[in-house]
Amino acid sequence: MAAQPKKIIVDTDPDAMAAQPKKIIIDTDPGIDDAMAIFVALRSPEVEVIGLTTIYGNVYTTLATRNALHLLEVAGRTDIPVAEGSHVSITNGTKLRIAGFVHGTDGLGNQNFPPPKGKPIEQSAADFLIEQAKLYPGKVTVVALGPLTNIALAIQRDPAFAKNIGQIVLLGGAFLVNGNVNPASEANIFGDPDAADIVFTSGADVVAVGINVTHQVVFTDADREKLSRSDGKFAQYLCKILDVYFSYHHDAYNIKGVYLHDPATILAAVDPSLMTYTEGVVRVQTSGITKGLTILYNKQKRFGEVTEWTDKPTVKVAVTADAPALVKLVMERLMDS
Amino acid sequence: MAAQPKKIIVDTDPDAMAAQPKKIIIDTDPGIDDAMAIFVALRSPEVEVIGLTTIYGNVYTTLATRNALHLLEVAGRTDIPVAEGSHVSITNGTKLRIAGFVHGTDGLGNQNFPPPKGKPIEQSAADFLIEQAKLYPGKVTVVALGPLTNIALAIQRDPAFAKNIGQIVLLGGAFLVNGNVNPASEANIFGDPDAADIVFTSGADVVAVGINVTHQVVFTDADREKLSRSDGKFAQYLCKILDVYFSYHHDAYNIKGVYLHDPATILAAVDPSLMTYTEGVVRVQTSGITKGLTILYNKQKRFGEVTEWTDKPTVKVAVTADAPALVKLVMERLMDS
Repeated sequence: MAAQPKKIIVDTDPDAMAAQPKKIIIDTDPGIDDAMAIFVALRSPEVEVIGLTTIYGNVYTTLATRNALHLLEVAGRTDIPVAEGSHVSITNGTKLRIAGFVHGTDGLGNQNFPPPKGKPIEQSAADFLIEQAKLYPGKVTVVALGPLTNIALAIQRDPAFAKNIGQIVLLGGAFLVNGNVNPASEANIFGDPDAADIVFTSGADVVAVGINVTHQVVFTDADREKLSRSDGKFAQYLCKILDVYFSYHHDAYNIKGVYLHDPATILAAVDPSLMTYTEGVVRVQTSGITKGLTILYNKQKRFGEVTEWTDKPTVKVAVTADAPALVKLVMERLMDS
Repeated sequence: MAAQPKKIIVDTDPDAMAAQPKKIIIDTDPGIDDAMAIFVALRSPEVEVIGLTTIYGNVYTTLATRNALHLLEVAGRTDIPVAEGSHVSITNGTKLRIAGFVHGTDGLGNQNFPPPKGKPIEQSAADFLIEQAKLYPGKVTVVALGPLTNIALAIQRDPAFAKNIGQIVLLGGAFLVNGNVNPASEANIFGDPDAADIVFTSGADVVAVGINVTHQVVFTDADREKLSRSDGKFAQYLCKILDVYFSYHHDAYNIKGVYLHDPATILAAVDPSLMTYTEGVVRVQTSGITKGLTILYNKQKRFGEVTEWTDKPTVKVAVTADAPALVKLVMERLMDS
């Protein structure tokens, strides 16, 4: 029998292409809510996690790398590469602020997990980001859950990176609300304000999810109780590490629950329709008492004078979130066994 | 007939005392809306204007003094002293930003009014403020309509000033909204950020009315038309000078109307119940791209770390205004003949 001619499917239907999993790289400083976010991503068929890059923030970078490898081992996903990121801010001028008091000194609820067996790849986080963006131009989304040093380094090292990268969805900023490091500044932007300003003004397709939005996405005591009754692997793991995070929120915000900063941001990449957005120029204050402050120009006023916002590229900034849908989705994906 | 014993009324009823006109000093950089505000104050039986002090902002200080004297002559109130204020910011480190493009180069709608006959008193604005506060401790309200240099100088020169002054009601700040000089900063705070930070952290009873509130108080084309049909002296005068101010608002905000920044602030001193307020610590960024930015700490979060807001005195910040009532009151008082 003659061989059938091979049928080559060239899929040019944009809808069908959109249905293919979106390639994402998670830039992360795990971190309890980073762990939740990574697990949610691994359980989301809409996305394919093609790498983790690490950064300081909730922990120092060395520990972030260790925790990233550990979490992938817990998930049985050691096929995903981990690239270690910068140990210092982009100007190396900022004393690092490490939020051990939020996540535990080990970043994962003080559980003394055994060291991971795996190792990070040789490539640095910035070089890995540059390479992947070049490999799949316009197709890779970086979800940045920590200070933006690695992303800014990629932008500085490769003039094509801002164009090659599909989208940068970042957890950062306190838009029209008080910060969480101090009344002006949110922790990720505060961690490297110079890097953040580079990212916001890079011309890349940037979506910023600030604490003005993530503070609406609360995982309650009741949600935790429900999670603990699941025999899902991720649910069981997370219930072990959540104590410290709950204690911190109770002390700092007087709430019985925790903010789902990182999982909400991951889900903004998984399904952008879970939030609404405005668009405008964002600049970051890099010194003084409001260092790390993000100011979005809302275009209400036409300024006669040239300002620091004039002629800069715009970004998208999340303004509302469907909080019940976000929490429901986090629960479903984590309870899946 | 024997003389009746003289009846001495010692009024200790707080309600009756409150009914006495409140002594106010207007610190001003006239300015078209300053002119409106001064006229409204002079027509408000609830307050007694005991002096004007001058400052740069809408015009340079020399011209502000000339305009203040001129406006008192228009009003027939040359009994009110004018004390000239600082010609430079408190550190003398800031290039002055003069808003001639908003109010006309003469500050009063480019009308070439004749020079005033009167002269300012010998005392400087800061010394006049200190003296009056000492003379009537707790009884004098300063309504500050420009950059806060004079008030900060009074605070620095006399350690008792913050306690002696009854209240400082100031037009300044952009709380949770974009500024009007640039996306970060409101003009009066931008004009002297160091002075503003001194005032906000002085411990005085401070009420800040920001553009987040005054942008709700719009004097429309229809209001102007109505004003022009009044034969009131102030109404007639103002209708001559309003053109430039309307043009500016149309160009900058695309509105057919003008914001009543200064009259709204005067009325917050006349009748505080026309606005609602929150209370918290306000700090001012004094350098960088967000210089002049005001950040109010709303106390949502209990910060574990010491911040620049920690242990500083609180101030009141206007959050809502009864805009229709404010506009109605401005109209009534200006149309009075």
